[in-house]
Amino acid sequence: MNVQDAVAILERTPSAVSALLDGVPDVWARATEGEGTWSPYDVIGHLVHGERTDWIPRARHILSGEPRPFAPFDRMAQFTESEGKSLGELLTTFAELRRHNVAELLALKLGESDLGRTGRHPDFGEVTLGQLLAMWVVHDLDHVAQIARTMAKVYADAVGPWQAYLSILRDRQR
Amino acid sequence: MNVQDAVAILERTPSAVSALLDGVPDVWARATEGEGTWSPYDVIGHLVHGERTDWIPRARHILSGEPRPFAPFDRMAQFTESEGKSLGELLTTFAELRRHNVAELLALKLGESDLGRTGRHPDFGEVTLGQLLAMWVVHDLDHVAQIARTMAKVYADAVGPWQAYLSILRDRQR
Repeated sequence: MNVQDAVAILERTPSAVSALLDGVPDVWARATEGEGTWSPYDVIGHLVHGERTDWIPRARHILSGEPRPFAPFDRMAQFTESEGKSLGELLTTFAELRRHNVAELLALKLGESDLGRTGRHPDFGEVTLGQLLAMWVVHDLDHVAQIARTMAKVYADAVGPWQAYLSILRDRQR
Repeated sequence: MNVQDAVAILERTPSAVSALLDGVPDVWARATEGEGTWSPYDVIGHLVHGERTDWIPRARHILSGEPRPFAPFDRMAQFTESEGKSLGELLTTFAELRRHNVAELLALKLGESDLGRTGRHPDFGEVTLGQLLAMWVVHDLDHVAQIARTMAKVYADAVGPWQAYLSILRDRQR
């Protein structure tokens, strides 16, 4: 991985999720894939929480040489933090935080050797800064795919006989 | 399904795929999931071909009462039609065609009873106009998810131990 290619994705994610979701009816924004799964609205709250507590804080943690593990990430934070906020507000907050965090990332002027520096993940131990940055990118793309898949499933029955052609409707089926 | 909810997605897809892809390095735009799978570049060419030959032509076919099946859709057309075209050009073409097609769809002023009108699919026979329009939406979302999944897999190894947390990297694995 390299920082430039990673930033090409990281800086585009807010506009991609806003393009998909800003202003859509709740039938799309509040859809889930079933009990215990997240709606697009939930996903955006989760992305906001990641900008605040995960990526840049962990990158700084690694660069500081801190030997203790990262603080664990709260995967359920959005269920309280998003309360009372509209999807539009969450999208705006995500875009602002991401812009700030990409600027912070670039300001670190990371070289090849920095990407090999290591920190400790609370669950699985040693990870490199390069792996953390690659994870940031893949995590974005995973959630973009999840949003599209969740919305697609709203019309799982409505497509009638075409259902057989759409493997997305069977991805992550329970 | 209803036309208004469908249009909410159909009119957003061009800006969503442009936000994801316009100007990204080829490492993302030309990535595939392995032999015989499509890159984001290929997918946009496929979406362009669909705008030209699939959705609105088939809707008109149904409304005309034509008893013969739809013309089969060419799933490989983009491999010749996109030749010599940049990703940026394809994204612009897709956006223009989609804008035109959504306007055509709205101009049809479809009522509930129109959505139940039927045509014949060349492979599986009778389908309704409502199913065709739902399929148009799900087809968009399927390809948005495919683009994100394909790009995510570029960093499948780069994420190191996080790989185990990313089910997207195992979706549609061969």
